[in-house]
Amino acid sequence: MVRPLAELETPTLLLDEAKLDRNIVRMKARLAGFGVPLRPHIKTAKSRDVYARALPGAVGVTVSTLAEAEYAFDHGVANILYAVGMTPAKLDRALALRAKGADLTLTADSLEAARAIAAKGEAAHDRIPVVIEIDSDDHRAGVKPLSAAARDIAAYLQQSIGARFGGLMTHAGGSYACRSEAAIRDAAERERRAVVDTAAMLKADGAQSGIVSVGSTPTATFGARFDGVTEVRVGVYMFMDLVMAGLGVCGVDDIAISVLVSVIGRQPEKGWIITDGGWMALSRDRGTAAFPVDHGYGLVCDEAGRPIGDLIVVSCNQEHGIIARRGGGAVDPAAFPIGRLLRILPNHACATAAQFGAYDVIDGVGAVIARYPRIGGW
Amino acid sequence: MVRPLAELETPTLLLDEAKLDRNIVRMKARLAGFGVPLRPHIKTAKSRDVYARALPGAVGVTVSTLAEAEYAFDHGVANILYAVGMTPAKLDRALALRAKGADLTLTADSLEAARAIAAKGEAAHDRIPVVIEIDSDDHRAGVKPLSAAARDIAAYLQQSIGARFGGLMTHAGGSYACRSEAAIRDAAERERRAVVDTAAMLKADGAQSGIVSVGSTPTATFGARFDGVTEVRVGVYMFMDLVMAGLGVCGVDDIAISVLVSVIGRQPEKGWIITDGGWMALSRDRGTAAFPVDHGYGLVCDEAGRPIGDLIVVSCNQEHGIIARRGGGAVDPAAFPIGRLLRILPNHACATAAQFGAYDVIDGVGAVIARYPRIGGW
Repeated sequence: MVRPLAELETPTLLLDEAKLDRNIVRMKARLAGFGVPLRPHIKTAKSRDVYARALPGAVGVTVSTLAEAEYAFDHGVANILYAVGMTPAKLDRALALRAKGADLTLTADSLEAARAIAAKGEAAHDRIPVVIEIDSDDHRAGVKPLSAAARDIAAYLQQSIGARFGGLMTHAGGSYACRSEAAIRDAAERERRAVVDTAAMLKADGAQSGIVSVGSTPTATFGARFDGVTEVRVGVYMFMDLVMAGLGVCGVDDIAISVLVSVIGRQPEKGWIITDGGWMALSRDRGTAAFPVDHGYGLVCDEAGRPIGDLIVVSCNQEHGIIARRGGGAVDPAAFPIGRLLRILPNHACATAAQFGAYDVIDGVGAVIARYPRIGGW
Repeated sequence: MVRPLAELETPTLLLDEAKLDRNIVRMKARLAGFGVPLRPHIKTAKSRDVYARALPGAVGVTVSTLAEAEYAFDHGVANILYAVGMTPAKLDRALALRAKGADLTLTADSLEAARAIAAKGEAAHDRIPVVIEIDSDDHRAGVKPLSAAARDIAAYLQQSIGARFGGLMTHAGGSYACRSEAAIRDAAERERRAVVDTAAMLKADGAQSGIVSVGSTPTATFGARFDGVTEVRVGVYMFMDLVMAGLGVCGVDDIAISVLVSVIGRQPEKGWIITDGGWMALSRDRGTAAFPVDHGYGLVCDEAGRPIGDLIVVSCNQEHGIIARRGGGAVDPAAFPIGRLLRILPNHACATAAQFGAYDVIDGVGAVIARYPRIGGW
């Protein structure tokens, strides 16, 4: 049932379907040009209704929780990469999902973790595929490219009864700190080399072939080479956000999600408009804080999604968002009557979307055409 | 069914019942000494199983969403103050709750909002109580103490058919920025005077009596006078957090909630321990960032809840938390095997608890004794 935006209760999460589809098509076309398929990361969308559009031609999905893995499998995706290091206590659930038929691959960056996985696999008469995480930019987890540790884990997995070598993966999370397209392109090449060179070393050691997986939305957008890579993992690209716009990965007009809020008050002497979109709706993410253009807790748009001058959400309480001009200055209170609807573009799509249980989907002219549920939890 | 902590899946939200009860008793006893009752704010706990312990002797509850109001009413609390400015589109839901028997009071800080409420009330043959929000510290919403605006709104409500004057409320949110007990005590007195003096002015104008409501956990903890105040609204006090500890409102040992996480990796050359507690579990709240002691994304404790040296969560990805020493330095990886359970104390109880759908309740020796569901959404 198509409804006008004004019938929604605020705050709520809007998803512009046309922008979503455009973002998905653009990334797919770019990587198709390099002959490399996607393994979309569903941690951003957390909704089959959203990420299903990215599945045709994809090798499977990437997940960051077992809840996402179970959800993906229940909705028809068998090939799943759990791209977070494993803790032994989660193995029973992972094995249960494999026993139901999921081709679930786990991740390890230590012999200790690989052994724990193999022990459980052996006890369950399963041989669990494990990818080794490679640390391509000193940013998070993983063993070093071309390291003895990578060699040791691969050798262990090759001879294991309860696990097997599934390949290599890395994530250039450091690309979020880049400040130019050239820097992101360099990060992409480091990301690629980290896994491709290590895979070649392991192949020379006699390892079976496996996946060679890279991925971050910035590096996937600007990477100049993908030779040797078997798949690209990206999630934010479906929605984009102000961090991606700040990196030059997209334009502000490409951002597919926004939070619909209502004006609930004004403080004219301070130049403030107060809305019902606080951090409970926008999240506490301040991803643009260190960027040349800091959007506070989000960029303020009118009901049609057009930015209103230099208005941003300058501060948040739990259920109050305070809007002001970026550099300070007067705001005409008469332009913001109580009840006026505004849309806030998010710093970080993953964090803002996670504050909601569903998307209100809008078409190109702002009519509400559907509601897509999201999953949460672990 | 009592279970050991090790049977829980991580990340999960722990609630120490003994600390919860102690915090609730302490605040109640303090305010009883001043002869002033509580109106607990349920936006922190969002669970009847939690806030019910604070209800005996309370005048009702405070809420920040209509979802909280409906939940409270469905669970037996009739006297409810919705302490956020109203947008007209929410009035039908508010009126429906009143029609079911809830004594729901709304908040306004402009004639425009008061008129919108009164118009709906009149159409529904209801006379909706409205409190006027007073801005005691230039921090958020409200009209100035002793202002003509307060007088105008009160006068309008007195003669309205669809609304009535319900009293005054203020929130000393600025107390979170205080850096000494004396400063918080001053903030408490400003908070008190803002509403008590304005109430006296309105009484002299001929206003009926109504509530005179103050509240923030810091000012309720250190306020020296509550004369003329009819109720105190507090929420965080039930759990406490690192922000409250940083303000001297509680000790670290009083913090009743923590996030249970598992070690999933180590980066010994960087002094990092990696866990499955990222910002999806801890929230993006960096409430202690500007404090003398910055706890990053949370203070790291062992399974029994005791802080481990100077370990904090220094950075977060969506499902990865990176633990390191506050000032940097080596961490013995052997002390943090894969799968080791740790507990992270939160910067901000409201934000961290909001990332979860339930509490795993533990007793004084860390056994899991219950699971309390939380509500979310609006």
